[in-house]
Amino acid sequence: MGLRVGVVGAGQLARMMIAPAVELGVELRVLAEEPGMAARLAATSVGDYRDAATVLAFAREVDVVTFDHEHVPQQVLRALVDAGVHVRPGPDALQYAQDKLRMRAKLQEVGMPQPDWAAVASAAQLQEFLDAHGGRAVVKTPRGGYDGKGVRVVSAATEADDWFAALAEDAHGGQLLAEELVDFRRELAQQVARRPSGGIVAWPVVETVQRDGVCAEVIAPAPQASERLVEIAARIGADIAAGLGVAGAFAVELFETVDERLLVNELAMRPHNSGHWTQDAAVTGQFEQHLRAVLDLPLGDPSPREDWAVMVNILGGPDQDSLEDRLPAALAAHPSAKAHLYGKAPRPGRKVGHVTVAGDDLDDIAYQARAAASLFLG
Amino acid sequence: MGLRVGVVGAGQLARMMIAPAVELGVELRVLAEEPGMAARLAATSVGDYRDAATVLAFAREVDVVTFDHEHVPQQVLRALVDAGVHVRPGPDALQYAQDKLRMRAKLQEVGMPQPDWAAVASAAQLQEFLDAHGGRAVVKTPRGGYDGKGVRVVSAATEADDWFAALAEDAHGGQLLAEELVDFRRELAQQVARRPSGGIVAWPVVETVQRDGVCAEVIAPAPQASERLVEIAARIGADIAAGLGVAGAFAVELFETVDERLLVNELAMRPHNSGHWTQDAAVTGQFEQHLRAVLDLPLGDPSPREDWAVMVNILGGPDQDSLEDRLPAALAAHPSAKAHLYGKAPRPGRKVGHVTVAGDDLDDIAYQARAAASLFLG
Repeated sequence: MGLRVGVVGAGQLARMMIAPAVELGVELRVLAEEPGMAARLAATSVGDYRDAATVLAFAREVDVVTFDHEHVPQQVLRALVDAGVHVRPGPDALQYAQDKLRMRAKLQEVGMPQPDWAAVASAAQLQEFLDAHGGRAVVKTPRGGYDGKGVRVVSAATEADDWFAALAEDAHGGQLLAEELVDFRRELAQQVARRPSGGIVAWPVVETVQRDGVCAEVIAPAPQASERLVEIAARIGADIAAGLGVAGAFAVELFETVDERLLVNELAMRPHNSGHWTQDAAVTGQFEQHLRAVLDLPLGDPSPREDWAVMVNILGGPDQDSLEDRLPAALAAHPSAKAHLYGKAPRPGRKVGHVTVAGDDLDDIAYQARAAASLFLG
Repeated sequence: MGLRVGVVGAGQLARMMIAPAVELGVELRVLAEEPGMAARLAATSVGDYRDAATVLAFAREVDVVTFDHEHVPQQVLRALVDAGVHVRPGPDALQYAQDKLRMRAKLQEVGMPQPDWAAVASAAQLQEFLDAHGGRAVVKTPRGGYDGKGVRVVSAATEADDWFAALAEDAHGGQLLAEELVDFRRELAQQVARRPSGGIVAWPVVETVQRDGVCAEVIAPAPQASERLVEIAARIGADIAAGLGVAGAFAVELFETVDERLLVNELAMRPHNSGHWTQDAAVTGQFEQHLRAVLDLPLGDPSPREDWAVMVNILGGPDQDSLEDRLPAALAAHPSAKAHLYGKAPRPGRKVGHVTVAGDDLDDIAYQARAAASLFLG
C-alpha cells in the first residue's frame, strides 16, 4: 500500500498538489465541496467540511489529512485528532490562521516582530487606539477575512460600528483587531515548510505586489534584499514554524518598513499564492514540499533553479468565457512562460490561473510574465 | 468546454502526462488496458486497444487521440482517421516505429544517416550480409521488439533460424532486418517535438547509457558534444519529424561512431525515457510539449534550466515489495533529487521509477542521481 494524503477542499491549491503527488507516487484523495471544482481529477468524495462525520469518513481512507483552505472548524479538527487521525497542520496551528486575535497574541508570545495591535471591544477602545497611533489604523475582523475582505483602514472609530454590531455575539465578545497602519516600503512573503518530526526549510523571501487587496504578482527572490534581510525573514519563518507547531508548507506575509524592519502582517497555514513561483523555478516546489512535510518525509532542497522568477496571477475578467481559447496566443507569444490554469469559471476578480517565467534577466522575465498573463484577460 | 486529450495506454508515459495536463488546464482521459495501471488517476475507460470499436468510443469524448505506446494496430488507427478523429502521431508516422524494415526504408528515402542494412528473407541472405560486414551483424525482428527484445548480435546465419521460422507468415514474408554492427563510441538520443501545423523544437542531444539493452541513465546535454554534433543531431531530429510527418514529442536514438558520425539506431514515436530529464530540468518538459504538440498549440522553450541533468532509472529488484518504503531514506540522503515513482509493482527488471538531479557540477549530480536511485533498489 502506498502513501495516501487526503486534502479537505478542492480549490486550486488542492489541484496543484496533484502533479507532485503523481510524481512522488503518492495517492492524493480530495474531499470536494461540490462536483466540478478545480481539483476534480483527484476528488474521491463530495461533502461538507463542516460536518465531522463526513470528514472522519474521508479521513479513514488516508494516512494524513491536510487542507486546501483554513476554514475547517476547530471542533471538526479536534474530532479528527481525537479519532487518531494525523491532521497536518493540526488544530493548534490552524487556529492562528483562523483567528487573527489569537495569531497576534501568539506571535507576541513567541517574540515575533509585528505591528502594534490591540483587541478592541468598542468604538471607544478603537478611538483610544486611533488616538495613540496618529489617528489612523487598520481594523480587521478576527475571523473570515481573505484577499482584503474583513480589513478596513479607518480614521474614525464609527467606521467600524457595523462590525462591532455584527460581531457582538462571537467568541471574542465582539472584539476586533486594531493594528498600527505600517509605513511600509513593500510587502514580502516568506515560504517555509516544517515536518512534524522537526525539519524546517525556507525558500528565499519574495516580494509580493498587491492590487485591490489581492496578490497580483510575485518576484522571487525579493529584489535588492540584503543578506541580512533574507536571513531575518528566514529566521522569522522558522521561528513561527517551530513556535506555532506548523506541519506543512506555509507562508508568512511581511511588511518591510521604510526604516528596514520586518513585521509580520498575516499567516497562511498552507501553500500560498506567494509561493507558486517555486513550482517552476525551485528545486522543490511548495506543493511537493507540502506533501513531503505532511507525510513527515525528508524535505527537499528549496534552492531556486534560476536567478529570478516572476509569477503573475490571472484574474477573471468581465467578458471572459474560456481561458483555453486564449492559450494559443499566450503560448505563441511567450514560449518560456509556464501557464497554470485552474479549471475554474473565470468570474470577475476570481483567481483562475497564473503565469510564471524564470531566467537571469529580471526586466525581461517580468515583461514576459505580465504580457503572457495579460493575454488571458478579457 | 476545455481541451481534452485522450491517451491510449495507461503506462508511465501516460502517467507522466497527468502533471502537465493539470497545469495547462487540459483534461486528460486515458484508455487503460486494465484497472490499477500507472496512469490510473486519469483512466476513464478500460478496454482493448486492438479493438476498433473500443478505441472509437473512447475517441469520441476527446479532441485528439495520442498514445502511451506504439502498439495500436494500423487498422485501428486507420479506422479512427476514417471516422474523423485527430490521431497524433498518425498511422503513417506510427508505422515507422511499429516496423523496423519500413523505418529503415523511409529513413533511406529521407536521406538520414544510418547503419548499413538489408531485409533478409533467408539464412542464405543473412549469411551474405554477414560476409559483407566482417562476419557479424545485428538481426532484428521487424515488429514487437523493445528494451533489447527482438534484437540479436549474430556471427552465423543459423543463429536466426528460429526467427525465420516464426516469421514465415508475417506481413514481410518472414523477412528480418539485418544491420551493420556499428563501432560506436557512445549512444545519444535526440528529443524533438512537432506540431501538425509545422512548428518543430529540439532539446539538446543527450547521452544514454544502456545496460542489458535497457536504458540505465541519461546525461543531458551529452558531455563533450561539439557544437557541430549538437547541430547535426537536432537537424536529424527535425528532418525526421518533418519527413515522417510526426506529431508530438518523440526520440531519435543515435550512435556516435568512433569516426564522429551520427547514425540513426531507433525511433520512438512518443515521449521517451531518454527525455525524462526534461521534466525537472528544461523550461518545457517532453510531456508538456507532447500535449501542446498533439493539441497543435504553440510549442514551448526546450532550453535546459541547469547546466547538467542526470536521470537514472529505477528497475524492480528481486526482493522488492514497496518503493514507497525506500522513499524516506532516498529523500533524506539526496535533498536535490527529484524522485518519480510510477505506481507499478516492482517486478524484477521492470522500469518502476526514475530519479533526476540537475545542477552545475556534473560529477556531483551524477553521483547524487545514481546514489539516490540505488537506495530504491532491493
